[in-house]
Amino acid sequence: MRRALELARRGAGRVSPNPMVGCVIARGGRVIGEGWHETCGGPHAERNALAACTEDPAGATLYVTLEPCCHWGRTPPCTDAILERGIARVVVGCTDPNPLVDGKGVRLLREAGVEVETGVLEQECWRLNEVFFHFIQHRTPFVVYKYAMTLDGKTASASGDSRWVSGEAARCRVHEVRGQLSAIMVGVDTVLADDPLLTCRIPGGRDPLRIVCDSRARTPLDSRLIQSAGEIPTIIAAVGWNERAAALKKAGAQILLCGERDGRVDLRELMRQLGARGVDSILLEGGTTLAFAALEAGIVRKVQAYIAPKLLGGSTARTPAGGQGLARMADAWRLTGLTAEPVGEDFLLEGYLPCSQDL
Amino acid sequence: MRRALELARRGAGRVSPNPMVGCVIARGGRVIGEGWHETCGGPHAERNALAACTEDPAGATLYVTLEPCCHWGRTPPCTDAILERGIARVVVGCTDPNPLVDGKGVRLLREAGVEVETGVLEQECWRLNEVFFHFIQHRTPFVVYKYAMTLDGKTASASGDSRWVSGEAARCRVHEVRGQLSAIMVGVDTVLADDPLLTCRIPGGRDPLRIVCDSRARTPLDSRLIQSAGEIPTIIAAVGWNERAAALKKAGAQILLCGERDGRVDLRELMRQLGARGVDSILLEGGTTLAFAALEAGIVRKVQAYIAPKLLGGSTARTPAGGQGLARMADAWRLTGLTAEPVGEDFLLEGYLPCSQDL
Repeated sequence: MRRALELARRGAGRVSPNPMVGCVIARGGRVIGEGWHETCGGPHAERNALAACTEDPAGATLYVTLEPCCHWGRTPPCTDAILERGIARVVVGCTDPNPLVDGKGVRLLREAGVEVETGVLEQECWRLNEVFFHFIQHRTPFVVYKYAMTLDGKTASASGDSRWVSGEAARCRVHEVRGQLSAIMVGVDTVLADDPLLTCRIPGGRDPLRIVCDSRARTPLDSRLIQSAGEIPTIIAAVGWNERAAALKKAGAQILLCGERDGRVDLRELMRQLGARGVDSILLEGGTTLAFAALEAGIVRKVQAYIAPKLLGGSTARTPAGGQGLARMADAWRLTGLTAEPVGEDFLLEGYLPCSQDL
Repeated sequence: MRRALELARRGAGRVSPNPMVGCVIARGGRVIGEGWHETCGGPHAERNALAACTEDPAGATLYVTLEPCCHWGRTPPCTDAILERGIARVVVGCTDPNPLVDGKGVRLLREAGVEVETGVLEQECWRLNEVFFHFIQHRTPFVVYKYAMTLDGKTASASGDSRWVSGEAARCRVHEVRGQLSAIMVGVDTVLADDPLLTCRIPGGRDPLRIVCDSRARTPLDSRLIQSAGEIPTIIAAVGWNERAAALKKAGAQILLCGERDGRVDLRELMRQLGARGVDSILLEGGTTLAFAALEAGIVRKVQAYIAPKLLGGSTARTPAGGQGLARMADAWRLTGLTAEPVGEDFLLEGYLPCSQDL
């Protein structure tokens, strides 16, 4: 399955909006065929692996990162091909949450007498396509809340200095993630304080759609965001039309009007609107107030915390999620699947928040 | 060397105030003898390994976690034994900062024609005896600053709730560390807020000496600390004698008078006084103000941050190091050797602060 995961990753950037899938066919510990989903519209990983077999795969075991499909899409069902070639055993990484599959592929194979094992390296297989899986189920963006803080929990000093919390390797990684997700979102306070450009600075990287949560359309016309709104799509999410919104629109930004909630943009509605426009993923980057509102609204799915090997002190220094905060420690939002990975001099801690009911 | 480290750990709790040391003798990839320093006053690891050899060690390689001693202590110099038995090559984990050795053991062996390699798994070998090495060099306690926070940097909610930040495994680990270090230190604010007992709750564990930084001797007579001061040694570090100090002394606490610095106990002087009393290590547990003061005073050597997979929010919630804080991110105290280790549901991030000049 590790090899199948490796193969799957070869499809990165080429198979969207399909998921990345890898497949290995083996007999008695010997690999006799492998393949991956190479391009959107092209054959699925299973068919590529079956076609690549160096001997008759009848009776062999097929390892695949994602449950084989059992429906007609651009290509015929993979379950058919598996049965035709007489595969005896199928090992599945994770089941396909696509409502058209969703366990039916596994059931169909089992009913046809194939031995099926599921959930092997499930977490890795799921993470490989987490944006895809989320979006196909919920039709709202997969939101990644990212921040960098010192080991004593500060994102800026008591006097507001935040350059830089994390090292170069971590900042570079953030630009990679920006290039992989569809959009980047900040609060207007971050625009007013930092005047960020929010582009992907990896050479050849794709700039994400930029979204500002800005209920009263206070984003300045001379901000770097608006100055570059002609070239890079920029959305101002506001709660009502006003003169400033009109001026921002004239300057090249798109104005997206949402309902109001506690005096701010209703983030759940914003997610539904963005989902309807096909925005499948968002990197939530800035604003401690926006971060807390996003957590309260239940729109955050993944958390990426870069932790720098630094101590700063300061009882009034800024911390990642601000706002009013929860009153009881026992009520804290709990992350699952927390991992720690060194990134240059820093550590990246990643975890997941449970998906709230459809927004 | 890994094996030598394993052997060394067998001396834990039995060799103090000596360091733990392990030794392996090998020829052509084959182990012919091994040993460790078993009890204080007993033979050193090298002599035990030489005595355990199953064949003549002449011409063999000796791996030892700590530089062999070259002076007479309770036992004769290990360098003599190594030379007598004709060892051809010595591989050393870390050199011995003991002023009586400090590179002289390595030099003596080299001068006698033995090939010596140093710095193999140096960090692990150093960490094994970090308290010992620090104390023998500086004669002040090795201070470990420990805290638990959420992934968004909070040690308590905006309303002050802090039960519990970390999970059971992490809390259990803290009790183990309490049992390993000589003392535990908190600020009086922590005593007033939490009324902690500060004992080691591991069955059979040793309770550390308890120290309260309490410039004006405000620790309540009915606190759990003072109520148990008859059984568990308890020091109140104050800046001047007053009636409250006299009452605390009568209740069983020791009063340690220190100079004043910025209206508080001079922590550097406190460390010198505690070092003179033989306190070789302190776990600094509580009080965000005391933590910042300790960082400012340069007395913290190691940081243990337990990070819980939780998000709490709250712009006014408590964070680990408080106080005034440093103004510039670029001036933050930098940790070296940062590691991350899962402890139950939490992650323990550990790192070191440079040792300031002797206090």
